[in-house]
Amino acid sequence: MPDDASTSAGSGPSCPLPLRVHETIQMAHGGGGRLMRDLIETVFKRAFMNPALARSHDSAVLAAPAGRLAFTTDSYVVSPLVFPGGDIGKLAVCGTLNDLAMAGAAPLALSAGFILEEGFPLEHLARIVESMQAAAAAAGVAIVTGDTKVVDRGKGDGVFINTAGIGAVPDGVDVGPHRVQPGDVVVLSGDVGRHGVAILSVREGLGFETSIESDCADLSPLVARLTAAGIELHCLRDLTRGGLASALNEIALDGQVEIALDERAIPVSEAVAAASELLGLDPLHVANEGRMIAIVPATEADRVLAAWRGHPAAPDPGVIGRVTGRDHPRVLLLNRLGGTRILDLLSGEQLPRIC
Amino acid sequence: MPDDASTSAGSGPSCPLPLRVHETIQMAHGGGGRLMRDLIETVFKRAFMNPALARSHDSAVLAAPAGRLAFTTDSYVVSPLVFPGGDIGKLAVCGTLNDLAMAGAAPLALSAGFILEEGFPLEHLARIVESMQAAAAAAGVAIVTGDTKVVDRGKGDGVFINTAGIGAVPDGVDVGPHRVQPGDVVVLSGDVGRHGVAILSVREGLGFETSIESDCADLSPLVARLTAAGIELHCLRDLTRGGLASALNEIALDGQVEIALDERAIPVSEAVAAASELLGLDPLHVANEGRMIAIVPATEADRVLAAWRGHPAAPDPGVIGRVTGRDHPRVLLLNRLGGTRILDLLSGEQLPRIC
Repeated sequence: MPDDASTSAGSGPSCPLPLRVHETIQMAHGGGGRLMRDLIETVFKRAFMNPALARSHDSAVLAAPAGRLAFTTDSYVVSPLVFPGGDIGKLAVCGTLNDLAMAGAAPLALSAGFILEEGFPLEHLARIVESMQAAAAAAGVAIVTGDTKVVDRGKGDGVFINTAGIGAVPDGVDVGPHRVQPGDVVVLSGDVGRHGVAILSVREGLGFETSIESDCADLSPLVARLTAAGIELHCLRDLTRGGLASALNEIALDGQVEIALDERAIPVSEAVAAASELLGLDPLHVANEGRMIAIVPATEADRVLAAWRGHPAAPDPGVIGRVTGRDHPRVLLLNRLGGTRILDLLSGEQLPRIC
Repeated sequence: MPDDASTSAGSGPSCPLPLRVHETIQMAHGGGGRLMRDLIETVFKRAFMNPALARSHDSAVLAAPAGRLAFTTDSYVVSPLVFPGGDIGKLAVCGTLNDLAMAGAAPLALSAGFILEEGFPLEHLARIVESMQAAAAAAGVAIVTGDTKVVDRGKGDGVFINTAGIGAVPDGVDVGPHRVQPGDVVVLSGDVGRHGVAILSVREGLGFETSIESDCADLSPLVARLTAAGIELHCLRDLTRGGLASALNEIALDGQVEIALDERAIPVSEAVAAASELLGLDPLHVANEGRMIAIVPATEADRVLAAWRGHPAAPDPGVIGRVTGRDHPRVLLLNRLGGTRILDLLSGEQLPRIC
């Protein structure tokens, strides 16, 4: 058995998966015995194969970068597991790449931890794993270490994935809310609200005339362009749970600054605007998985826009606001009619399990 | 609200937790809004507070070690969450420290990702988090980055925890099944079978006369003693899921060696032996969370024993077997009566959700 498994692992993801369609996860797949070894060889190593993972040890061992290391983790519990524009696998890879990128880091390696529910179809798992590998390969990053646990039917929900990531922070890059200061501007990479609306449209079975795809994407190339150009970066943030509004409120509170946004400058697609109205959502609070802001000195704004222009992950970059002071840490929104209101953190959430 | 939260976060874990006993996890605790921010400030940052985590950013940024980096991940789904000798929090920290140690690495930092079930008592969460912090602090390691997700009631099981870890591998250390060779000996740190039996005794409500405590412990001090002494190490492995038998079978298969064990040399406490007989378990297949083996050249065995002697995590160190050849990758057991049998991987598992 282990010999067969090694053979299929070695022959790479192009050969047909040695699974029968109706095979499902059993408790024993998490038990440390032969079934777990087979699962690792036929599903995980087969897709993720790389020298560090091939060593079959408890930890991957890698060359350390010079200088500083970024380290991050995220668990993914999105429901449904597959949605327009992505699936939990792509999301788990892109989301963690994005967290590294928001520290200004270039990604070095990812880990993958799976919590599988008894009865989950192995074929679905294999597709999710291939989707992870495709997203990691596109970013030029390997998944070098992993773990699998199985929980009883009714104690999980198909599959939960944790990805942790390590990255190298280039010399001279120091980003975070502590760097944000009055006079800075906020540059946004594209239209907001796609991911949350895409998830909700599937979950609620809404038949929107225009199909809205998640913006799920790896943002590290956008950050690489900024650091390569030597642009002075104060803060970077991807607009995940809680959307643009939460990201800016966190920065305002942690950096003790007031940020004023111009609503007219924030792109929202017609389809997202219409769906949000129907669903009672505010697109500024809806999660994105492929949009980011860069907060930079006003004099650097044009260079950010130039760096991003033409990259598919920054479809509509623009300056959407500025840092106006330190007296009142908050986010203000100048709306389309010329009025100003406080754009607050929501107390709870609009959408459960969007990532 | 954020101001209050920051205040309590700053005053450290000695002050009473600002939670009411009946507060429970709500879906909104995972939503990216104010409730999630409060949870992070009052429960997670309060316990884990350290400079990297305090920066409130998507990734922690740390100084990179010189040389090589170890990187590992594990998810923990143990049931019950609290057991004799530990809880899921201590297990999640020690387990990942142990995976780093088994690469020969000294731990640098940990991440923590929580998947919480709606309705889980916040007070239980706070106790688990404090247990994580206690284990991390005892190892001199900080939890520098984290994530929280909430799933609907009935889609999780209280709390699942993922911990990833990074460590520094000392120069000259290269451990793994590829280094194991005929003539090596297997040194075991202490008696086996405690963790799995402790979990099962609680789960099944068995009233053993002697209460059996899990061996859950950080093994990195044992490995630090070996590397500090400059002992030639070929392979290190902690004896988790599947126990001693699985660990050695994996090494035999991955390193293509035959390993012969002397059953009489493998310590099993009387309590564990009695409970195993009652439960129909073989202690050699039962999970441990604080036992390890070192496979070293025979000439180094005495130095391993000397390095470990007197450390509480190595209560009964001894040589239990040797690597006998390369023709038949397998594990042989010389039993108490003088017979020899193959000690195989179990096809499934004895105990679900023991870690």
